[in-house]
Amino acid sequence: MLPPLRFQIHHRDPQSQARSGLLQTRRSSLPTPVFMPVGTLATVKAMDTKEVAALGYKIILGNTYHLMLRPGEANIRRHGGLHGFMDWPNSILTDSGGYQVFSLAHRRRISEEGVTFLSHIDGSKHELTPERAIQIQQDLGSDIMMVLDECPPHDVKPRYMEESVARTTRWAERCLAARGPHAGALFGIVQGGLDHDMRAAHLEQLQAMAFEGLAIGGLSVGEGPEAMDDMVGFIVPRMPADRPRYLMGVGLPADIIRAVGHGIDMFDCVVPTRNARNGQLFTWDGPMQLRHAAHTEDLRPVEAECDCEACRRFSRAYLRHLYKANEILGMRLNTLHNLTFYAELMRRIRTAISAGNYAAWAKDTLERLGAGQSG
Amino acid sequence: MLPPLRFQIHHRDPQSQARSGLLQTRRSSLPTPVFMPVGTLATVKAMDTKEVAALGYKIILGNTYHLMLRPGEANIRRHGGLHGFMDWPNSILTDSGGYQVFSLAHRRRISEEGVTFLSHIDGSKHELTPERAIQIQQDLGSDIMMVLDECPPHDVKPRYMEESVARTTRWAERCLAARGPHAGALFGIVQGGLDHDMRAAHLEQLQAMAFEGLAIGGLSVGEGPEAMDDMVGFIVPRMPADRPRYLMGVGLPADIIRAVGHGIDMFDCVVPTRNARNGQLFTWDGPMQLRHAAHTEDLRPVEAECDCEACRRFSRAYLRHLYKANEILGMRLNTLHNLTFYAELMRRIRTAISAGNYAAWAKDTLERLGAGQSG
Repeated sequence: MLPPLRFQIHHRDPQSQARSGLLQTRRSSLPTPVFMPVGTLATVKAMDTKEVAALGYKIILGNTYHLMLRPGEANIRRHGGLHGFMDWPNSILTDSGGYQVFSLAHRRRISEEGVTFLSHIDGSKHELTPERAIQIQQDLGSDIMMVLDECPPHDVKPRYMEESVARTTRWAERCLAARGPHAGALFGIVQGGLDHDMRAAHLEQLQAMAFEGLAIGGLSVGEGPEAMDDMVGFIVPRMPADRPRYLMGVGLPADIIRAVGHGIDMFDCVVPTRNARNGQLFTWDGPMQLRHAAHTEDLRPVEAECDCEACRRFSRAYLRHLYKANEILGMRLNTLHNLTFYAELMRRIRTAISAGNYAAWAKDTLERLGAGQSG
Repeated sequence: MLPPLRFQIHHRDPQSQARSGLLQTRRSSLPTPVFMPVGTLATVKAMDTKEVAALGYKIILGNTYHLMLRPGEANIRRHGGLHGFMDWPNSILTDSGGYQVFSLAHRRRISEEGVTFLSHIDGSKHELTPERAIQIQQDLGSDIMMVLDECPPHDVKPRYMEESVARTTRWAERCLAARGPHAGALFGIVQGGLDHDMRAAHLEQLQAMAFEGLAIGGLSVGEGPEAMDDMVGFIVPRMPADRPRYLMGVGLPADIIRAVGHGIDMFDCVVPTRNARNGQLFTWDGPMQLRHAAHTEDLRPVEAECDCEACRRFSRAYLRHLYKANEILGMRLNTLHNLTFYAELMRRIRTAISAGNYAAWAKDTLERLGAGQSG
């Protein structure tokens, strides 16, 4: 049997830390840097998996916390895993549930063993331990699993952050030990808030373990783009070069462009899909808001250079009409456009890296994206 | 230029009034009896027009009242009409707005000239006259237009019903006079509530005019299936045989099967799309409700004999999961299934008529549809 993950770096940008390559799970090959659309509840919201695949995506993300509560991993396992349940032939990365337990669940109690909590849906009681997080992800048929981690707020006392990070390390060891022989890859998650020393110490502990990749958790949670950029720029160059680096929950196009420049290979974020449902469309001249009356009679497509169905077949006026009328088709077309934009963003990123001019491309693109945010 | 509508009858069932044929607008050919999905606000809810076309539908319905308020017919005209606005190459039938003015709008006042009302969306004041109803429908680029009619409740006093029907006749004449030389077809609408004599008298007035087809209005508005069946069975055999007959706003599969047996050629209804969004799936053994817990772990498709995407790719358990989680994809797949069911229903109806065994087929199918309503 093939190893659960192989990773090759093909190009390194001379002026930045950016790198491009190929990540191979047992199910699909992913050119990196890669963006993973989020399929929280066994669906990338508003999309059919066939549409997601047609845009070139080879991997999506599933949420362990949401799926363990509804419909439950045993039900999904009987469907041949999440792939069969939602008819998605390519790769799936699953988070461990940790982040949602700490942001959505009620009455959580953390102990060395794990965390107990009440479901945010029906108040039922559940427990998530490192072993259970791995069992669930294996039942889901995950191609890339994540360790159970605690994601404390940035403003906890240093003493608590230290304890939390140490516990996350012990949980990471238990996750590795719990993994079955034919299971997917497993990534460790570097925590430590906004403290350089704590991040570096945690990274040192995790990189000594047999993870196929390492992720950065606990960012993009309200610390602001400068603080995030500072931490990413600090920690990424210290991460092992031969393993994929995943910046969890990031982000806006500008965040991605900057993080790639620091050497990140993998991203996921709800922004393209969630913002689409709220009428925000990404373009190369900055985001466009369908709520603005200026689009009411505009016969032009959202973006002339975009070849998505929304841009090839419909006017801004039609998309604004669907948005105002709260029509499902509007959410579909907006999501299709934004996922097309993100797929194209990652293609342009990879092209710039392989051409060796990523730093210059990033500077120009960041300017263009920021210049036109009036729409 | 071709006439706006041509109609040929190909088969007549020997044991009933059912007939099958071909209706041709300038845009598409429609085998009859035909069902028209409803695209109220320039979208068949939850569907892409490409999906609707792929199911074999050659005509959909648009709502004048909704579109005149939002986004306004002038905006749509600039897009080359509703066809360009919503990217639908096949035919569109538009209602006149009368039905919605009498069911949705506020503070309406009827006069000989027309009807004034306040928008249910923002309270703005509007007027709909026969001439304006035709102008809007022409701006929309309608292939089959409907006359402006009043649709009074069944329980109004006979005196009022008589006045209303007479006014609807005068409005029908004004609609015909207002039609431009290159406009689409125009249908009259027979009103008269549940009174046989009033219906027959109204029909006599309308069939003397140059309408390309005649519709029955004011049914399926709460009178119950028996009263509707009685009136359809009474009035349809009296309608001109050489023009298409359209039963507005109908209906459930059983309603359609019975009305075809009386000689109806055209139907429209929100039932397949609206019920889909509420988790009701039509099957040949009666409707299935996704809210029922029995489907929670059911790996079977909704209907084994159905070849829609929902049935070929997903389990009942997955569709129930999407329904419970209120996911857009669930509404999409359910709508796709129900529109597939209705398309197949109309195909089977036409096949039975051309085979000359419609009456027997209808009896068997009504039994089967009614027998399994436990799901």
